[in-house]
Parts: sequence; structure tokens; C-alpha cells
Amino acid sequence: MGERKEVFVTVGTTCFDKLVAAVDSDPVKEALFRRGFTHLQIQIGRGTYIPSKVSGQEVGLDVDYFTFSTSIADHLKAASLVISHAGSGSIFETLRLGKPLIVVVNEDLMDNHQAELAEELANRRHLFFVRGPQLLAQTIESMDLESLVPYTLGDPNDIVAQIDASLRLTSPGEGSVKKEGEGEGAGISKSKAKKDAKNAEKAEKAAQRQQARAATSSVGASESDETDPLSPNYGDIPVEDIQSKSITGRTWTDVGELCAEMKDKNVLIRGAAQAIRPVSKKMAFLVVRQSMSTVQCVLVVSKDVVSPQMVRFATSLSKESIVDVEGVISVPNEPIKGTTQQVEIQVRKLYCINRAVPNLPINIEDASRSETEFKKAEESGEQLVRVGQDTRLNHRVLDLRTPANQAIFEIQSQVEKVFRQFLESEGFRGIHTPKLIAGSSEGGAAVFKLDYKGQPACLAQSPQLHKQMTICGGFGRVFEVGPVFRAEDSYTHRHLCEFVGLDVEMEIKEHYFEVCDIVDRLLVAMFDHLNKNCSKELESINRQYPFQPLKYLPRTLRLTYDEGIQMLKEAGVEIEPMGDLNTEAEKKLGKLVSDKYNTDFYMLTRYPLGIRPFYTMPSYDNPAYSNSFDVFVRGEEIISGAQRVHLPELLTKRAEQCGIDVKTISTYIDSFRYGAPPHGGFGVGLERVVMLFCGLNNIRKSSLFPRDPQRLTP
Amino acid sequence: MGERKEVFVTVGTTCFDKLVAAVDSDPVKEALFRRGFTHLQIQIGRGTYIPSKVSGQEVGLDVDYFTFSTSIADHLKAASLVISHAGSGSIFETLRLGKPLIVVVNEDLMDNHQAELAEELANRRHLFFVRGPQLLAQTIESMDLESLVPYTLGDPNDIVAQIDASLRLTSPGEGSVKKEGEGEGAGISKSKAKKDAKNAEKAEKAAQRQQARAATSSVGASESDETDPLSPNYGDIPVEDIQSKSITGRTWTDVGELCAEMKDKNVLIRGAAQAIRPVSKKMAFLVVRQSMSTVQCVLVVSKDVVSPQMVRFATSLSKESIVDVEGVISVPNEPIKGTTQQVEIQVRKLYCINRAVPNLPINIEDASRSETEFKKAEESGEQLVRVGQDTRLNHRVLDLRTPANQAIFEIQSQVEKVFRQFLESEGFRGIHTPKLIAGSSEGGAAVFKLDYKGQPACLAQSPQLHKQMTICGGFGRVFEVGPVFRAEDSYTHRHLCEFVGLDVEMEIKEHYFEVCDIVDRLLVAMFDHLNKNCSKELESINRQYPFQPLKYLPRTLRLTYDEGIQMLKEAGVEIEPMGDLNTEAEKKLGKLVSDKYNTDFYMLTRYPLGIRPFYTMPSYDNPAYSNSFDVFVRGEEIISGAQRVHLPELLTKRAEQCGIDVKTISTYIDSFRYGAPPHGGFGVGLERVVMLFCGLNNIRKSSLFPRDPQRLTP
Repeated sequence: MGERKEVFVTVGTTCFDKLVAAVDSDPVKEALFRRGFTHLQIQIGRGTYIPSKVSGQEVGLDVDYFTFSTSIADHLKAASLVISHAGSGSIFETLRLGKPLIVVVNEDLMDNHQAELAEELANRRHLFFVRGPQLLAQTIESMDLESLVPYTLGDPNDIVAQIDASLRLTSPGEGSVKKEGEGEGAGISKSKAKKDAKNAEKAEKAAQRQQARAATSSVGASESDETDPLSPNYGDIPVEDIQSKSITGRTWTDVGELCAEMKDKNVLIRGAAQAIRPVSKKMAFLVVRQSMSTVQCVLVVSKDVVSPQMVRFATSLSKESIVDVEGVISVPNEPIKGTTQQVEIQVRKLYCINRAVPNLPINIEDASRSETEFKKAEESGEQLVRVGQDTRLNHRVLDLRTPANQAIFEIQSQVEKVFRQFLESEGFRGIHTPKLIAGSSEGGAAVFKLDYKGQPACLAQSPQLHKQMTICGGFGRVFEVGPVFRAEDSYTHRHLCEFVGLDVEMEIKEHYFEVCDIVDRLLVAMFDHLNKNCSKELESINRQYPFQPLKYLPRTLRLTYDEGIQMLKEAGVEIEPMGDLNTEAEKKLGKLVSDKYNTDFYMLTRYPLGIRPFYTMPSYDNPAYSNSFDVFVRGEEIISGAQRVHLPELLTKRAEQCGIDVKTISTYIDSFRYGAPPHGGFGVGLERVVMLFCGLNNIRKSSLFPRDPQRLTP
Repeated sequence: MGERKEVFVTVGTTCFDKLVAAVDSDPVKEALFRRGFTHLQIQIGRGTYIPSKVSGQEVGLDVDYFTFSTSIADHLKAASLVISHAGSGSIFETLRLGKPLIVVVNEDLMDNHQAELAEELANRRHLFFVRGPQLLAQTIESMDLESLVPYTLGDPNDIVAQIDASLRLTSPGEGSVKKEGEGEGAGISKSKAKKDAKNAEKAEKAAQRQQARAATSSVGASESDETDPLSPNYGDIPVEDIQSKSITGRTWTDVGELCAEMKDKNVLIRGAAQAIRPVSKKMAFLVVRQSMSTVQCVLVVSKDVVSPQMVRFATSLSKESIVDVEGVISVPNEPIKGTTQQVEIQVRKLYCINRAVPNLPINIEDASRSETEFKKAEESGEQLVRVGQDTRLNHRVLDLRTPANQAIFEIQSQVEKVFRQFLESEGFRGIHTPKLIAGSSEGGAAVFKLDYKGQPACLAQSPQLHKQMTICGGFGRVFEVGPVFRAEDSYTHRHLCEFVGLDVEMEIKEHYFEVCDIVDRLLVAMFDHLNKNCSKELESINRQYPFQPLKYLPRTLRLTYDEGIQMLKEAGVEIEPMGDLNTEAEKKLGKLVSDKYNTDFYMLTRYPLGIRPFYTMPSYDNPAYSNSFDVFVRGEEIISGAQRVHLPELLTKRAEQCGIDVKTISTYIDSFRYGAPPHGGFGVGLERVVMLFCGLNNIRKSSLFPRDPQRLTP
């Protein structure tokens, strides 16, 4: 083969598939081969086009590719020819190494600006300039490498200045500049290249800002001064910039991850401006929030870093506006009150992505206060704003931003996660049953009715009938997470018209206690998981809504219904022995059990048949009782379960006894005629688990967008 | 303390909390202490009552407890007194060790039979008999250990026979008998004890069967012969037995786990009698199915093992009846055709749990046939029954039992599992948004309307608006799995009126390709997972509905909409450039892409704005285009996604342009006034993913209980 002559193609961290595809095409490969090149190395960046890698017999080129690498410099040094996108970083790095360079402009991405730098450098004969990949083969064929003028240091500022003057600029170099920052071992002047890129960036920002001002933008006008040389470092981001204009591949840090170990590091965050505290014309604080985490950002006027205009811009922001903050992590000597993160960001750049209206219907600070704070304020004669439940729900998108609410819905997602993972590990299969059904899904609760293509239909009150049908379909063990609908007029703290049901159904080999065993281990696993992995969230809830941690036993206490009644009786509470427990009795029994057994979580088994749904299996020894159970947390029912009747004759009889029109459930009853295994299951309300585990006083607090008899919005 | 004198309390593997609680009470502890005992060791079994473990100063007893142990014999040997439940295994084991024994009857569990053995042995002065835990303290106080008569071997059969004669028997010993089988090192005659227990069990079965016959049971009458001494080994199980009568703690094996390594092992399975093949009066085969797995069970008449009556019983079973089979695993020399498991069970016991009606509306064999089988049969002139789609859906519980359907819904559950796990690992939070909403959730599709407590409401066509609101609520990244409702009159192979939506919404830092990246990695992870972990299921589907494995690239191909149009144009298909692709064009483009890029899975980006929903973000450089994408599998759309408009003014303008009554979505639009981060997302139909990955021809095949304009049941 003789001498190795490599062509290095780079698109930086951008997506420039057309260039990669062009390079991978036969005409270009053949042209390169004819010009004496032996190897083709392609960096495809974020693109999706995969080069063929086939060298081909006719074209003797060795082709290879990669996406990103920290050693671009090595490839550049090894190359005899570089073909690059128009990023300024790539351009200057290549030129400084004295390598022949072809710059190909990405016509799809460019905003009529990107070509300018390359074109100017081409005019000075430092490189070859190609307006679009389709012209690449032709350029390679015809280029005269000897005609190129070596690039000398110092030039780029001239060029940048020149282009700056006309406010038409290339985009800043992305890939290579970033890679330099990562400390690869290239022998070129990094600081120089960085400065070049920075200058280019500055100039572009200035250009963009000027354009933004000229345009009748919907974004609030910038507060910064045009004469401020630091003005590219702050301001309102123009609309086009948040319309997917470009991919820079910058690294973002979550506010929750900011910690003292990052001291002196440069970070970039995005969040809501929760608090803006002007101190003087030369200093301001900004608290930025992302989910449950907050960090203090500091602006102090300092030459070439922060201008008074930048401080003024910061203090002009409205609360809850979305901001991008870039800066250096510092660690104050004193603990920082009022933010979760114990570091500060010394702001270098501050951009507003989206301005909030100045007068918010809810102040997040007000919505986050605990009763303790209200009491304290009252004692000191201070008047604090209280945000009522309805106001919260009417402006739920604001209310959801409080730390307690962020935590509540994280807990909710964790409850569902454990529910699924535990059951999957026990051989249960996740299913989805229809919510639109003919007839009513079970007796008792009122249903939402609707017209279904001319047929009367209703919304499922539970997946009961269908989940049982999957058991008859041979599914063995199933679970479902889905909405359930109750049209009842319940105006209580624990009823909703729509909530999320966690449902389980399983074959029973011998005894419905097999179902109780699953409940027991599932809920204990769930509680253990929350206590172990969600301490931050539980603390956050506790701060606003104080509660005692749930007491529960490693093996859940099981009492029979009769034993429960007996305990109440002994405590002087008389209950109709075959009737149901009312809310008050449940609470009282919860207290008695808690005192006696030291647990807030227990089961009552063997309920009277008369107070259970028609599909509940009667006890083998006494038809007045049933193979059923309820589970209680802090004296409130969260789970109801039972063995089901799988014998069609008995099921029909029971349905009739319960006043159900058997015709409307005939498909359901028929399901058991074709060989049905004994089975049972249970249902849990997701919101109720969260509410009771966290000791919340209202189920609306654990429902994202609650639906009750009076609320259908937001 | 002097000599150690231990009391061992055992409840076997049962739940007998009242005994444990009684033993743990002060009166009993004091009585034991006064009788010179120093240690109290309690086996609590399946109970939930936890002994206090406190020795107490007044009562100098050392208390300890455990649930289950393989070394009960050691505890028995160490004991100076045993207090036991009435299980025959525990009783005989204790007596044979010559230990003083108090048997306490569990009055809650017993069926008036359990006490008999203990009472008879008490009459012979072999033990003390206590009718209920409340009398225990008194018995301990008054018992005269010297009065006990040592028990000698050989007695139990007498006793059993005696009780058998009167058909009133104790239940077989559970805990200790089972433990013996596990091979602990007790020095007593194990085989003897086993035999005792077996005799007891036999006698009880006989008793139960006699009772079942006497009762007017709804279960089909037994086919067995009363004069058959093997009759306890087969028959219809009485109703009471499947009403949670007892917990025996037997070990069950899944049919899918049966393998050659289990040769000669005794197994117990439950499943559906898929096929019953009488060979002669002395031999029959039974194919038992559990989920996707089947096993051949063999009955061959053999003295003391299988009687001709037992074979007759087996062949009397109706197809799809639920049976329990106990037997020994054997491995035939020839491969077994027609079952998934390559072993047989030599049946020892066979009970019918639930009889199917003799004439099933669908024969599972018919419903499981592939087109290939139909073709073959046709060629050979054979007439096979075809089960139409509607018949299948009308009798879905039977249709679901086919191997292909079992596999399809396992695949479906796996798709959802990967969806969740991938997104959780990427920092997405699972949420649940309401399905009942005021107004229509977006323009375009028809909605199901209903009356919500006097207010007009509709069912959500997607969680679009609410998932975006959670992003405005600071949730960062969210996903939701839930039903979506479309009232459109689409009578196609790929539309349903209710399906399961997999929805994602996320903050965008710079570019909507961040969303595309998630789609790309998510779907590739999903396909990889299915191919890697669900080969059995995919084969099972392939057997009935043959399909080619999905071709996809490790990095998903992305083309712009214009590029797609161009490809179609070049292939001679003319498309309105700013209009949507119709089904035919989608198919054609899928074919072109597959041919050119060797992938059945790709994205089209940058759709014309005019054919996207009002909330889609226009492109920054050309308002005729949008920051949106669709994803295709095998030439059919499965995912639609985009960056959203997060600017309230632009959103209002776009809604108006799209003919939406802005008043009905005012809460939604207002959500963006309080500081809204740029964001985007996508939605996938769960049934469509399954359908297209598995190359199924109709979405009704991947919906458990499909809902279309003409179907609302089952």
C-alpha cells in the first residue's frame, strides 16, 4: 500500500448526516482514492447515518467511523486532509496544525450565518469552502493543495472582529472546543483557541440580541445595556433559540446534584427563579429551584465578569421565570438557610428562558408553609397569607411546585413502582382491561353513564369483572393499574370520583390467605422501600404536613372481623355484629389495635357475607361469613379483598340475592362455565396508600388533578 | 437456675394465634413457672401474633419463638413438655419420643373432626387434651404427669381404623409430617410416622368423599367406585374444599418448570385438562395446560396405584376442566409431540377442581391453528374448524387460552415493563392524569361525552394537556400509562375506541431531538429486550401467526418529512407536499426505507405544521414546518411526538387557527403564564407496538378486550 494517507472527517457534536453520507458515497471515495488517500476516518457525531465501513475492491480506501471521542486532536494530527463542518473550533484547531482543510456547510441547519467565517477564511485561501455536501466530490477532484496559504496565529480575532462589525457571524465551535476543555493531550495553544471561540460566541450573542430587539418578540424586553461589553452573558433568550434552533451538547447539572465536592467547577443549570433578592446595585441573590431542590445564585459586580447591568437584569426577573444560570460553585462558611443545596453559584451567565407573569395567583412561599409557621407568625403578630385547598387546586400547576407536593408525587410514583416490581417478581402479569363497559361493573356504587355509539355504556367502577375473566383465560396471576370511576356523591376527605386503582387477581390453590400473604408481603415491602429510599421526600412532606412514621409489623397482624367487633365491644363501642364498620368505628378500632399490638397496619378477615359484593365466596363452614378481608392503615380502610365465587350457579344466585340484573353480567357469569380455577384478589387505591402512609388529611393532596362531585377542572 | 426444663409449643405450619397468645399470657407462664419449667420455645407457624419474648421478673421463664424450622425434632427432644395443636404428625412424633404432651384444639379451624384423634389418645391416657386455649393454664396447673401411659408403636393404626369406622377423623398432621420428609435427624421411625399420617389422610379423604356424595353438591358427581380402595386418590373435590377450608402448605410446581432433571420426583400441578385421550380401560392420557405450557399425564392401571375406576374417572372429565394432578416425573425415550414439556407425569392422584361444560363454544385446538395447518388440511381434503375473529372475541376467556394469545399478552406486559424501567432510569416520574375532563382534550378526534354531576364532560383523548401541566408544575420528566378514548368511527385493522396510551413529556434544554433521542433509545431497548428475553413467546406467536423478525438499527434512522416525500416522489408516488401521508403512502415509504436502509423502524421529522395539533411548536426558520416527528414500524405509524408551544400568546393564536374554542382550554393555556420550561413529548399506543413488533394483522389481537365502534363486550 505504501504511505498511509488519512482523511479525517468531523462533524463535531452536531448532526450532519448529509456530509457523512456524501463522504460515504462512491464518487467521493473514488475521488479521495484517486488523490492518493488510503484511509478514511469519520466522526459521525449525533447523526444517524452509519457509514458502510466497506472499503470496496474498486475503491481501496479503509473506512472507519466513531461518534464522539476525547482525542479528536490525535485524529487531526494523523490526518493528511480534514473535511469538517463549519464549526469555528474545528476550523481553527485544524488550521493551527497546518492541515489542508475542506469546510462543508450544513445548509439545513444554518441560519445564513454559519458560512461566513469559513467563507472569509476561504477568501484568504486558508481552506477550501464547499456550499453543501453534493459539491464535495467535485472539490476533491479539483482542489490544489499547494494553493493554500498557511494560517498564522492572531488572525482569527481580525476575522471575528471584521465579521462582528457586519453582525453576520458563524456559530461557535461546538465539538472541538468542548473537547479541549476536557483536557486532551493536543500540543496546540488551547487557551488561544478557547479565546477565539469565546470571541466568536460573544459576537454571535450580540448579533442575536440585536436581532431579538429588532424583531417584535413576545419575550419581555431585555434589561441589559447595549453598551455593556458583558451583555452577551445575560438577557432574555430570543424565541427562535428555544424553537430547537441548534444542538450545542452543553452539559447540564441538576440542582439536586450540586454539592461541595463541585467547588470551583463551572456548572450550567435550568430552573425557576423562586426568589430574587436585590442587595444593592452591585449585588443580588437569586434562588433557583428544580423539583424539590433549590440553590442560591450570587451576582456580585466584578470587572469583566459581572456588570451592574447584569445585576439589574437579574433583579428585573419575575418570580417563577425559567432561567439558565452558568457559574462557578462556591462553598460558604456558614450554612445556607432557605435552600436545600449547601453551595452557591457565583453567576457568570444568566439567561431568561421564559418570563412568568409578575402577579402570580399563588405565591409558592405561601403555599409551602406549615401550620407551625402559621402559629409562630400569629404569636409574633405577623399576618401570613394562607392558600386554601380550592385556590391550590384551581392553580394546580403552581401548587404542584411546593416541595411537599413534589415529594408527594414522587412517593406516589414509588408506590406504584414497588407494587409492580414486587408482583412481577411473584409471577404476576400486568394487564389492561377496558374502562368502557356495557352495564354496571358491580352492584352498589353509582356509575357514570354515557352513550357508546348508540349503546348504553358506563365507566368501570373497578376492573373486577375483567381481571377475573383473565384468570379464567389462564393468566394465573395478574395486576392492573388504572383509573376507576365512582359517581357517588361522597363529600369526604377520602373519596374521589376518579382515582387510580391498584388491582390484583390470582389463582388460589387452597385458601384465601394466599391472597392475604401477598398483600402482607407487598405492603411491607412497599413501606420498607419508602422508608429506606424516600427519606428526603418524607422529610419534605413532614416539614409542611407533620406526621408520625407508620408503625407496622414485619408480619402483618390478622384479626377476624368478629375479633375486631369484640375489641370494640370491650372498649364500649357497640356495633351491629353483621353490619359494616363505619368510619368512626374503623378509627376507634385502629386506635385499639395500635395500642394493643403496636401497629397502624393490620387486616380484618372473615367479614360477614351480607356486607360484601355478590361475587365474594361464602365461608365453607358458615354462609353468613365470607372469605374476605379488609386492610387498614391508621384506622382507615385501604384494601378490600376476597376469594371470588367461581361457580356459575352460586354466582348467579348471589347476584340475584344482591339485586343485580343477571342479564347485564351474563358474559361474566359465562366465563366460569368453561373451567375456572378458584381465585381471589384485592384492590388498593393509589391515592389512599400515599395519603395514609404520609398521614395526609385529604385525598385531594395525593391526587394530581382531583375529581370530586364538584370539581372537574383543571 | 438449676436444671433446664423446656416447654416446646408447636402449631406446625398452621395459623393458631389463639394458642400462641394463650401461651404468651401471664396465667400460663406463671403456671409453667410454678411447675418448674425454665424455658419456653414457641413455634408460631403461619400466625401473626408475635410473643412478647419478655421473660418478666415475676415469671422467670426464658421465652423465644420462631416460625418454621427444619429441626422440630431437636426441639421435641430437648423438651420436657410439649404443647401442640391437634395435627396427627406432631402428636405421634411427640408420643414416640415419650414426651409429656398437651394437645390444644383450634376450635376456629376445626370441622368437628380434628379433635377426635387427640380425644381418643387422651382417653387412653397417652396425652392431655384441652378443648380451647382458654383452658390451658388450668390444665397445666392441675395435670399429673405421672398419670400418663407411655405410647407404644403399633397403636395408631388401631386408633385410625377405629375412627375411620365412624367416619369422624382428625385432619392429617401438617407441619411435622412435612418436616420429616425434609430429612431432619430425628431418631424415630420416619416411615412409620409417614404411614400413620398417610392412613389418616386416606381415611379422611374417604370421609370427605362420602360427605360430598351425601350432600346435594353442585359439583358433578364422582365417577369413582365406592368399593375401590384407591378412591381417595381421585374424584371431584367437594365445594367446601375450595372454599378456603384448610391450609396444607403443599408444594405446587408450574407446568412450565417441569423438566427432565425432575425425573422420579413427585410433583403436584394444577391446570386445565386440554386433551383427554382414552387408550383402553386400563390406560389414558391427559394433557394438562398452565398458561403457555402443557404436559402429558399418564394413567396406567397398576395394583395399589391406579385402578380401572381411576382411569374411568380421568376419561370422564370434560375438556378445559381444572384438575390437580399428583404424580411422578418420567422421561420417555421418544420426544413428546403436542406438549411443550418433554417429560410425562405418571399419575398417582387426580382431582377435578372445577368441571367445564361439555360443549365449549370454542375448541382451544381449533383456535390455535395456523394458516399453514389449514392449508395442509385443505390439500389433504380434511375439513378443519375455523374460529372467526368475532367468535373469538365473544368468547374471549376461551380464546385467551391459546398459546399465541398467552404469548401476546406476556409480550404486552413486557413492553410496558421496559417502557417504565427505561424511563425511570432516565429520571422520568410515573404520573396519572384524569380521564374525566371538561371540554375536549384536543382538536380533531371525536370524544365520548357524558354528564358529570350536571356538568358536560368528556373522556380524555390523550393525557396531552395534563401531562404538559405537570411539566409546568416542575416535574421535569414524566410518563403515563393509561387508557385513551377515541369516539371516531374508524373501522380499520389498527384503530380502537379505547386503547392504552404510553405517554411521555419532558423538559427540552435546546432541541426537540432530545425527545427523539429518548424515543430512539427507548424503543431499541424495548426491541432488544423482547428479542432477548421473550423468545419462547415470540416463537409461540410465530407458530400461529408467522412473521419476520423486526429489522431495526442500533441508532434509529431519522429522515425529514421532505426527504420522505422526496423518496416517494422518486418512486413515482405523488404526495401533496404539505399534506399528511395516507396509510398507503406510509406503507410504500416503509418499503422504500426498508429496501434502502435495511430497517423496519425509522423516524420522520420536521412535519408540516398544518397537519399537526395546535400545541405543536413551529420550526424556528420556517413557520410552515414544525418541531415534530412520527415513528414508523413496518410502514405503520406508532408514535407521534413534538416540541410543544409553551408561550401562551402563540398557543392561543395556534388554538384559534385550528378552530378550538379557547375558553374550553383556558386553564391549560394559563398554565404557561407562570414560568414554563420548553418541553416536548410523545405518545405510543401499547397495542400498536405489540401488533407491529409481532407483525399481527389486526389490533384486536393485541387488545385484551377490544372496544371498537361495534363492540362494547365482553
